[in-house]
Parts: sequence; structure tokens; C-alpha cells
Amino acid sequence: MSESSGPTDVDPALDPALDPAHRQAVVDLLGALTYAELTAFSRLAADADLAPSLSAKAALARFAVTEFRHFELLRGRLESIDTDPDAAMEPFVAAFDAFHERTAPQTWLEGLVKAYVGDGIARDFYREISAFLDPRTHALVTTVLQDEGHAEFVLREVRGAIAADPRIAGRLALWARRLVGEALSQAQRVAADRDGLTALLVGSVPGAGADLAELVRMFGRLTEAHIRRMQLLGLSA
Amino acid sequence: MSESSGPTDVDPALDPALDPAHRQAVVDLLGALTYAELTAFSRLAADADLAPSLSAKAALARFAVTEFRHFELLRGRLESIDTDPDAAMEPFVAAFDAFHERTAPQTWLEGLVKAYVGDGIARDFYREISAFLDPRTHALVTTVLQDEGHAEFVLREVRGAIAADPRIAGRLALWARRLVGEALSQAQRVAADRDGLTALLVGSVPGAGADLAELVRMFGRLTEAHIRRMQLLGLSA
Repeated sequence: MSESSGPTDVDPALDPALDPAHRQAVVDLLGALTYAELTAFSRLAADADLAPSLSAKAALARFAVTEFRHFELLRGRLESIDTDPDAAMEPFVAAFDAFHERTAPQTWLEGLVKAYVGDGIARDFYREISAFLDPRTHALVTTVLQDEGHAEFVLREVRGAIAADPRIAGRLALWARRLVGEALSQAQRVAADRDGLTALLVGSVPGAGADLAELVRMFGRLTEAHIRRMQLLGLSA
Repeated sequence: MSESSGPTDVDPALDPALDPAHRQAVVDLLGALTYAELTAFSRLAADADLAPSLSAKAALARFAVTEFRHFELLRGRLESIDTDPDAAMEPFVAAFDAFHERTAPQTWLEGLVKAYVGDGIARDFYREISAFLDPRTHALVTTVLQDEGHAEFVLREVRGAIAADPRIAGRLALWARRLVGEALSQAQRVAADRDGLTALLVGSVPGAGADLAELVRMFGRLTEAHIRRMQLLGLSA
């Protein structure tokens, strides 16, 4: 697989001269993302069970397998910087599990919208904050956040379903708003717990981090991208 | 991945001189096994959600991914002999889904025992009948039925749990007996529906198939192997 020969193989060690706060932020970001990939695997595999056809089931299973490969890449990166992956993931388990328990899709379309809208915001967020980190972490995060055809599949399925029955658009739009609300609520919980990531975001990590103006712009970009995804789905944000 | 360069790549086409009944038996066997691998993926991914630790969760997810790779190999084989994979799987969907609905594990250990005991019997069965088919089908089936470390993982977990609390052995033994009963019931349903496979087994396919004495010996071997697996788990069959 091409993923295993990505830029992270060149020199896996994190720069030892890194500031400890920066290092902690890297471990937090990788820990969160690693567990996010493992839960994405589980969730897409469960969504596959809701698929309306064998080929749709296989397509979802294939997306789940891609997430698992990303999980293994990230876990390998944590190990290569002498960090226990399980310990790095642990702080994020409760919040991520709570999010998924509260937003378990009941239908095939709900699962697709959740994967597209929820993962879309998460992906944008991880990509934004990884830009404040060392180049190797940034490159790995960019690699694992590549889409690999999933978005296109979701758009085709959801638009097709709305074209066949326009009434479902309203229900799916409500569902997407609930997802965003639950995600924000869990993100606040994580932010309150994890000083490493928060310090990075509010710019108190020397040599890294955003200032307040940059942070406001970042949330503006996340919101715009979310609205664009909703429009692509044919849903009002 | 080494699986994709297996013996099936040499010449993927099924011998066109094959008797139509033999061909139908091959398609049936591959269709059943392909869907079995897809459901194995789903089931192991669901079992991962019951895992008591992050590393156990990752291990189960890894086994699920292996099953998905086997699914893709088998699907590729069906396509290479000009057979629509979905159509080949379809006859087995109802019986396999019914089996899994009736035997959904409630605990981590039930999931492990189901994977070991249930898949063990299924694997032996597929391997036995593939021996009656053309060499390429036989070689592919042998490849995808390789264990890849799953059995060892299950044995370690289940034996460890029984050592810690011997009372659970009785409950798990009952569970294993229920699995075998449900599996036999669904197998009878498939046998009644699918003349291709049944003809192969009762020896009415020219140039292939078992005679009655061989069939009796085969069921003897399946039973012996099942009892051996139960003993390895520390359970009475």
C-alpha cells in the first residue's frame, strides 16, 4: 500500500529539541486522531450493515478498512516517538465514545450524512491544528486525512435519495444539526481536559500556535466548509 | 500484500471445459464463501466494540480487515470467471444473516468463542468441499482460509478468562453448543436450496464429488476437529 511509504518513513523521530509543551500537543493531536480513526473504522463497519445492497455494503467496508490503515500509520508514528499509543488515545476515549453513542445512525442515509458532515468538520479541524506542529506530524496528518473517494460515494447516494424523495432532506438537515451540536459539546469537554491542545490553540506554546485573531479566522473557515458540504448534500445548514 | 500475488493470479479463468454442474458448484462455493467473508468482517468489527482494552479492540479490527482482504480476493475470482459477485452471494444472504442474528454475541468472550468455534467448522467445511473442485479454486480457498493468528489470540483470551473465573466455562460451552445447532439448521436450509453444492457433496457431479462413504468420513472429520477446538478452549463439547 502506498500509505506505508509516506513522508513519515524518512525520519520517524520527533525533533528532540522540541519544546515539551509542543511535544505534548503533538502527542495529544496524534492520540485524538488515532482513536478517531479506530472509531471511524468501527462506525463505517456498522454503517455497512445498514447498506441497501451488497455492493454498497462492500463499499462501506472498504472505507472502514482505509480508516484502519490510517489508524495503524498513526499508531506507528506514536510508537516511533516513544509514546504508548493506548496511553495517548485514552484521554479521548470517553468523549469520542459519548459522541458516537448519542449519534448512532438509525438508517443508511443518517450514517452517510454523519460520516460526511461529522468527519468533514473533524478532518478540517485536525488539518488546521496540525499546521501549527512540526512538518513531519503535519505531513502524516495530511496523508491520513485524505478522502479516498468516500465523499463522492456519500454525495451520490444522498443526492440520489433526496431526488427520489425530496421530503427526506428536511429530516437529514435536522440530523446534521444535531451532529454538529453533539460534536461541539464533546469538543468543549476535550478542550477543558487537555491543556496541551488548548495551549496550542490559544498560542501559549512557544514557537507554535495561533493568536486569537487567527483562531477566529479558523472557526470561520471550519463553518464555511461545513456550510459548503451541507449545500453539496442538498441540505440547508 | 502477499495475498494478492497468490496462485490465482497465474491464470484466473476457470477451465471452460468444465462440466456446467461443476461450474455451478464452484460459483456456489465461492458465492457462499465471499459472503461469509463479508459477514465475518462485519462481525469481527462489531466484536471489536466489545473489546476490554484498546489493544484488544485494535487486534479484532485487524482480524476484520484480513477478512475483508479475503472477501476482495474471492470477489475478484468470481469476476474473473465472468460471474456477477452480488448474484453469486445473494442465495446465501438470508441464511447467513439469520445465523448471525440468532447468535449475536452479548459479551466479548461470546464473540471470541463464536469466531473460533463457528468459523472453525465453516472453514473445515469449505476446505473439504473445495478439494472436490478444480485446483485453482481449491488453491484460492486454501489461501483465504488461512488463520493469520486469530485462533491463537482467541485461545489466549478465553483460557485466561476461564483461569480467572472457572465458572464461565459452563456458560461458554452452552453457547458453543447453541452456535453449532444454529449453524446446522442454516446449513440444512442452504443445502435444500442449492442443488449445485448438494450435487457436489452427494457425488452426482461427473468427475467430482464425494460418495456416501466419503461424506460420512468428512462429517466425522468435521466433528473431531470441532471437539478438538472445544478442548483447546477448555470447554466440553
